[in-house]
Amino acid sequence: MEFNKLKEIEKDPYSALGVSSKKEGVHEATKNLSKGLFLGTFCKILPLIGNLPQEVKDNYVQILHSDGVGTKSNIAYIARKEGYSTNTFQTLPQDALVMNLDDLACVGAFDNFYISNHIARNSNRISNEDITTIIQGYQDFFQKASDLGINIFDAGGETADVGSYTTTLGIDVTASTIIEKNKIIDCDNIPTNGYIVGLASNGQSSYENQPNSGIRSNGLTLAINSLLNSYYRKYPETMDQTVDQNKLFTGPYRLNDVIQDTNTGEKFTISEAILSPTRTYLPILKMCQEYGIEICGIIHCTGGGLTKSIKFGKQIRYVKSNLPATPIIFSEIQEARNIKDKYMYQTFNMGVGLEIIVPNEKEAELLIKIANYFDVSAKIIGYTEIAKHNTNEVIIEKNGIPLEYKL
Amino acid sequence: MEFNKLKEIEKDPYSALGVSSKKEGVHEATKNLSKGLFLGTFCKILPLIGNLPQEVKDNYVQILHSDGVGTKSNIAYIARKEGYSTNTFQTLPQDALVMNLDDLACVGAFDNFYISNHIARNSNRISNEDITTIIQGYQDFFQKASDLGINIFDAGGETADVGSYTTTLGIDVTASTIIEKNKIIDCDNIPTNGYIVGLASNGQSSYENQPNSGIRSNGLTLAINSLLNSYYRKYPETMDQTVDQNKLFTGPYRLNDVIQDTNTGEKFTISEAILSPTRTYLPILKMCQEYGIEICGIIHCTGGGLTKSIKFGKQIRYVKSNLPATPIIFSEIQEARNIKDKYMYQTFNMGVGLEIIVPNEKEAELLIKIANYFDVSAKIIGYTEIAKHNTNEVIIEKNGIPLEYKL
Repeated sequence: MEFNKLKEIEKDPYSALGVSSKKEGVHEATKNLSKGLFLGTFCKILPLIGNLPQEVKDNYVQILHSDGVGTKSNIAYIARKEGYSTNTFQTLPQDALVMNLDDLACVGAFDNFYISNHIARNSNRISNEDITTIIQGYQDFFQKASDLGINIFDAGGETADVGSYTTTLGIDVTASTIIEKNKIIDCDNIPTNGYIVGLASNGQSSYENQPNSGIRSNGLTLAINSLLNSYYRKYPETMDQTVDQNKLFTGPYRLNDVIQDTNTGEKFTISEAILSPTRTYLPILKMCQEYGIEICGIIHCTGGGLTKSIKFGKQIRYVKSNLPATPIIFSEIQEARNIKDKYMYQTFNMGVGLEIIVPNEKEAELLIKIANYFDVSAKIIGYTEIAKHNTNEVIIEKNGIPLEYKL
Repeated sequence: MEFNKLKEIEKDPYSALGVSSKKEGVHEATKNLSKGLFLGTFCKILPLIGNLPQEVKDNYVQILHSDGVGTKSNIAYIARKEGYSTNTFQTLPQDALVMNLDDLACVGAFDNFYISNHIARNSNRISNEDITTIIQGYQDFFQKASDLGINIFDAGGETADVGSYTTTLGIDVTASTIIEKNKIIDCDNIPTNGYIVGLASNGQSSYENQPNSGIRSNGLTLAINSLLNSYYRKYPETMDQTVDQNKLFTGPYRLNDVIQDTNTGEKFTISEAILSPTRTYLPILKMCQEYGIEICGIIHCTGGGLTKSIKFGKQIRYVKSNLPATPIIFSEIQEARNIKDKYMYQTFNMGVGLEIIVPNEKEAELLIKIANYFDVSAKIIGYTEIAKHNTNEVIIEKNGIPLEYKL
């Protein structure tokens, strides 16, 4: 093993890789922009405009949302270069789609989406065959969603040959939907005595073909560079040339190496673990809606990981004292790079892809039953209470030791 | 001058730069996908879905469209590195927006748009200050559009730190709108005896602060590498490492060098000429709508340049025999790289940003008057007739010599 463990614990390991998981700069740049019709929703809600009948404008709203797979595409690229089939690109569209769809789900939109996709590629590295695989991947997910009762309309997209600034591949999606204003879930309604139900990001749901590592599509730059070893420096096109090259590909593994989760018994090759497609929670949420489960707030644990909730609600203290066992991929990342617990929870989902806040234990139990119906683990991971100060707080208990996060 | 003119005329100069202006591979990958509600429209039209009232679903449609500035961002980046202010990024949002809005205009949507923006950046090269400039650039355009009576709602967006595959900056937009089904402009209605009115991409409209070079946002990789000289090889982050490096930055100029249009007398520095913001034609189209001008088809001369029209209409031969004088930026690109006429017209707009097909001379004259009202040059550049074979054709006459394009 040519694995060099970093001697020092880095204060902000992500920043050293050219990524800000907190996006302070971006928040500063956007702080004065309009927040939309609701101040507390997970996504921005806009009024319907144009020549539509006034009654429709009064009762429906529009949402438009953009996100992508980030650097997860680089692993698909490396895997293909290493002789894996072009199918390594096949589930990237699912990643890009679910990053958007499950964000929209957080505001109460569980069905009827429009999708426009954007591919930025280096055309000498990403072939037309690869593009065909990716476009087929979108169609495959649309079909899978349809089979689960979720309607998605494909608006097409754009493939840009932009090798002058793209070394490999960018996969991004914009999703839009129109929903009834009275169905909007506004996190400002999260109570100070609610229950937080966490839905697992790992395991194998009834609508997945294989076990999921739980990685989803956030923290990938750190995951890749922590897990993979220096062998992969032969792909400088996947290495940000502006960062210390010694901090890239510092891990112990090659793509074919196998890790095993001691809790679940599941085994993954590293490539399977990193490329594991982002699970959507839409089928679960749709069934919750059908059963009339009262939901006060939904948090998609994306950038910010298990501290994402800190941005939502009014003077809420989120206490997460009963988290599930950490999936193996996160333990491996942490171990490989010697990352502090506190940092891990604010970067990765750590096994909880979605947090749903319900008003009482009965609703929590019903919700858990529905998740389990789809073979998705779920449990009450904590509760909400009034924050000590006038901003939100997150407390994560790990082995009885509280990690405190303030806004 | 360290300008090395390429000795041979390249067969496909764009392909050598890693860009396909015809996008054959992408068309192959998408050929089997659903075309939407109309087969002949410039953008894909989708039905309204979800719980909206049936009457609304019957009478309105949804459009969602994605595009971006492509490699134009690299010039803004180089200009800033060369000591220009961060404002070099300020009009990139306009480029990204108009690339979408004026595509939507081609199907009859002239007002009421939602915008989601996506920024992919290398965070060590594109600072938070730059991001602030870009986000302000979006707001500036929204305000300008509003002043012109065009409503745009800002849905927010995503800024991704993806330095592992982005060397500088990607600026992309998704635009959406809802319009009445009976207002849709379907190019399948282009007649075989129509008049083609071309709206100028250069000159200075009443809603622009300075003369426009006419470059818009297509063909930028070729423009940049044809015009700028080898001095700029000091920015390898703007050079696609997978292409022959000797074909990059082969031009005669530096950013501060001045070119003058002999027809208009207008002078541009090279940086002004390349960064010249993409003009929207929405104010003109909106006024055409108000005056009830009959429009059979609109073609935004984007990828494919003046041959873009070949993809639209049924068995139409577009004869463009009366084109305006070629703006200086295109002559300079052609001269610098010794590009054939035939190739220039299928890559660049050559001074015509938008083609509007009207049924008769009277409508054409009214349309030209409205364009002129906004200080935008316009003229009848040609006509349509029935194609000789059963596919569309484009004939471009340059100095009496016809250039023929077949689908």
